[in-house]
Amino acid sequence: MHSSDNHAKVLTAAAAAPRNSRRHLIDFDVWPATDLLGLLDTADVMAQVLTRTIKKVPALQGFTIATLFFEESTRTRLSFERAARAQSADVISFAAGSSSLKKGEGIKDTLRTLEQLQADLYVVRHPAAGVPKQLTKWTDAVVVNAGDGRHAHPTQALLDAYTWLSVLRESRPGAVPVATTETAANDGMRPSPFRGLKLTIVGDIAHSRVARSNVDLFTKLGADVVFCGPTTLLPPELGALPGVSLSTSLHSAVEGADAVMALRLQRERMASGLLPSLAEYVTRYQLTEEVMKLAADDAIVMHPGPINRDVEIASDLADGPRSVIEQQVANGVNVRMAVLYTLLVGKR
Amino acid sequence: MHSSDNHAKVLTAAAAAPRNSRRHLIDFDVWPATDLLGLLDTADVMAQVLTRTIKKVPALQGFTIATLFFEESTRTRLSFERAARAQSADVISFAAGSSSLKKGEGIKDTLRTLEQLQADLYVVRHPAAGVPKQLTKWTDAVVVNAGDGRHAHPTQALLDAYTWLSVLRESRPGAVPVATTETAANDGMRPSPFRGLKLTIVGDIAHSRVARSNVDLFTKLGADVVFCGPTTLLPPELGALPGVSLSTSLHSAVEGADAVMALRLQRERMASGLLPSLAEYVTRYQLTEEVMKLAADDAIVMHPGPINRDVEIASDLADGPRSVIEQQVANGVNVRMAVLYTLLVGKR
Amino acid sequence: MHSSDNHAKVLTAAAAAPRNSRRHLIDFDVWPATDLLGLLDTADVMAQVLTRTIKKVPALQGFTIATLFFEESTRTRLSFERAARAQSADVISFAAGSSSLKKGEGIKDTLRTLEQLQADLYVVRHPAAGVPKQLTKWTDAVVVNAGDGRHAHPTQALLDAYTWLSVLRESRPGAVPVATTETAANDGMRPSPFRGLKLTIVGDIAHSRVARSNVDLFTKLGADVVFCGPTTLLPPELGALPGVSLSTSLHSAVEGADAVMALRLQRERMASGLLPSLAEYVTRYQLTEEVMKLAADDAIVMHPGPINRDVEIASDLADGPRSVIEQQVANGVNVRMAVLYTLLVGKR
Repeated sequence: MHSSDNHAKVLTAAAAAPRNSRRHLIDFDVWPATDLLGLLDTADVMAQVLTRTIKKVPALQGFTIATLFFEESTRTRLSFERAARAQSADVISFAAGSSSLKKGEGIKDTLRTLEQLQADLYVVRHPAAGVPKQLTKWTDAVVVNAGDGRHAHPTQALLDAYTWLSVLRESRPGAVPVATTETAANDGMRPSPFRGLKLTIVGDIAHSRVARSNVDLFTKLGADVVFCGPTTLLPPELGALPGVSLSTSLHSAVEGADAVMALRLQRERMASGLLPSLAEYVTRYQLTEEVMKLAADDAIVMHPGPINRDVEIASDLADGPRSVIEQQVANGVNVRMAVLYTLLVGKR
Repeated sequence: MHSSDNHAKVLTAAAAAPRNSRRHLIDFDVWPATDLLGLLDTADVMAQVLTRTIKKVPALQGFTIATLFFEESTRTRLSFERAARAQSADVISFAAGSSSLKKGEGIKDTLRTLEQLQADLYVVRHPAAGVPKQLTKWTDAVVVNAGDGRHAHPTQALLDAYTWLSVLRESRPGAVPVATTETAANDGMRPSPFRGLKLTIVGDIAHSRVARSNVDLFTKLGADVVFCGPTTLLPPELGALPGVSLSTSLHSAVEGADAVMALRLQRERMASGLLPSLAEYVTRYQLTEEVMKLAADDAIVMHPGPINRDVEIASDLADGPRSVIEQQVANGVNVRMAVLYTLLVGKR
Repeated sequence: MHSSDNHAKVLTAAAAAPRNSRRHLIDFDVWPATDLLGLLDTADVMAQVLTRTIKKVPALQGFTIATLFFEESTRTRLSFERAARAQSADVISFAAGSSSLKKGEGIKDTLRTLEQLQADLYVVRHPAAGVPKQLTKWTDAVVVNAGDGRHAHPTQALLDAYTWLSVLRESRPGAVPVATTETAANDGMRPSPFRGLKLTIVGDIAHSRVARSNVDLFTKLGADVVFCGPTTLLPPELGALPGVSLSTSLHSAVEGADAVMALRLQRERMASGLLPSLAEYVTRYQLTEEVMKLAADDAIVMHPGPINRDVEIASDLADGPRSVIEQQVANGVNVRMAVLYTLLVGKR
């Protein structure tokens, strides 16, 4: 009963999908807010599937999903593969690092070769920005960007949003409109639960595709975004975007924030001269329990992982009650299930 | 309706298979022409499966196919694995390069160990000629050669034949007998569509298992084969085979050819002293639009891939209308589906 | 008929399982002899499944099994994965060696990250003793130890026992009680077929998790165990265990033994100073046809593999009629099927 009710909900969402859905997920440019909220609703249904004894539905049976990782990320790759298998899709896993394809072949020839596999959807990660979008011109299959250079990492931003939304529903039940599948499908003017909230993102903004996807997503959903970090890591052009501001002061950036996200600090930035020293970075920009007292009482702390403990985030904050870092990780599979499902079944 | 019709065709082919089918596919020695044409017919049915929305049939459900690649080839391995999964078989993937099995174990002990997996069919690639055949003595399972040393690469030759046949059916519809499953199953004397055609293979014949499998397959199917290249790369004994001739002149070799195949030039041959210089090779043996004017008007250009652009083949020829290189790649999955299907289901 | 009978047997065993079954398989500490004999009975049913044309049952459909190998062992990993797929479970394969997870992440963070995959059962191998047990505290899923440091390798010991039992049933049919599923389920006082038998284990006892798991298993099942090797490789504390004795003399250790197991000699021991020389080890401790004449007439020879031919075991003995080394390998899959099945389906 319960099981088939949930499945019926999935199917209802699917039936409604074609009208609004986009063909690929490269970044959020062509995605209206309503569709993005619809993805979060579908992620909710998928989260319920994953609480059952049998964490698997036949929703994508017969489809083949290929993961093409030209830059290794076991975490993200396995998350997508689990999301595919949990819906009974077949998976082809291609890790370019260990492959003979890279020798002497251009990326176009490589991708053409992979096209022989006739997958229905490609999940692509690549160190160069733009490769997933380029691939859409060379294939009839659906393309999902799993991170390309500094450009975008849309499923990470979606799982951040889903995680935050889950918390808001509990901490501010009156303020957040709990979506039903019906409102998602029928109501383009549905209010966003993030409208007027403040998200602060701290760290190496300049090199972060996570920061870029998050600002795109959350400004579309009506939030204000503050980027915070040393001047050398804060691209001025980002401050010109509507709803976005820049700050080199952690205190003023965190003040009144409803959510604060610390980015992973890449060690190689130290050597690059963009940062004076690790000690100075820690002193000025490490997220701590102390600085979080300036944020809203129920403000959460996020991090895309993996964390450098006591570098960009204090260890006790990362493990404390404000932290939703584990929930972010846990929500990776259901959010990606929603993306795969919406793009593949919405197409028909 | 359409779906079940196609499936019925598969089953009909299967029912007919035991009478003719071979147990393994090591090379073409024990395969009569009729069985080889039957494989191409089955590949046609599989190609239709791959045009559907759901590119998957239950034909091999419950079977386990293990890919054992002692020499890396992501392209070929993924093609076999997709061919297995598209028929609902389970896949075990063993890449010897990254394995602890290679340390201090002879190949016999390694293969015995793999036998514990009780796969129904092994797809084997190995740098040493003869290993796949040897394996047939150590296992009750079916063995398919995915390339062994300079000996053979039979599925590559089959997909070359399937690709050429697809073109002939369009370009010379009257001349080519379009096979039906009934003729394939019942008529041992069925005429080969390749009878009397001329295939020219250009390049490093001496070190090529692709050249060897192609000459075996196409002479069985009634074509004439011309091998072309520098003397140092043209083994004289091959010229003694019936239906085969050798030529060091690209012009005379291509003249009147119905299909021309360029082989990949391995850079290490340069250093070996077998070739004077890359520049000289390019001048004398590169396949170009110009030289193709000597071939038949509708002659096609093939290449087993991956190509060295502007070395063994001019880039514009590779991307031009005569080129069927992309079709060759695209036909890898359906041809391998046919091989797996015929060997596994034909056995019963 | 036959198929459904066997499946019914599986289901009967499953229905009986919850009463006795343990939640994890880390070592044999919390496993009573009756449950261990029950695992061997279930392995027998699984062995029958693997003799069928279709070597697959739907027993674990919908479950996801993740293999986490922080120490490479292709042999063991593939065996578990085959055991999972033969029961229709999904498999996630995580090889830590090739992963980005190891960079700068503690094992706790790594395991938490893997938890996002929401697998139902983790198969874990790790170079440090204790990691699989630790993992049980961080996950709600079932954990199976696939080898941790020098601590334990329980599925290896179980397949040793299953292999020996299969031989005893043929060589001593009257002496061995042939178990039925009913006796396994109902009879806690069922006599062990190993009671009073003598197992001799020869080699590097000190560094062997195989030796440790075997002594735990076989003394629980009523056998006497003799450890044999140079003093430097014989930990005195093991001699204090009930039913266990130590010997530096191969002759006296093998005398009257019903089964003799040679352990793999790690080459690095030579350099460590724990052994005088390879030649001396071979002279004093190599298992040969000659020394086996001192054992029982029908005594068997076992080895966990892979063997160093003519080091710890003479090549002709390894290939001779007393050797059950190939059967050990062959029984890997059915024994692991039994373990996965009992732990997953027994839980409900």
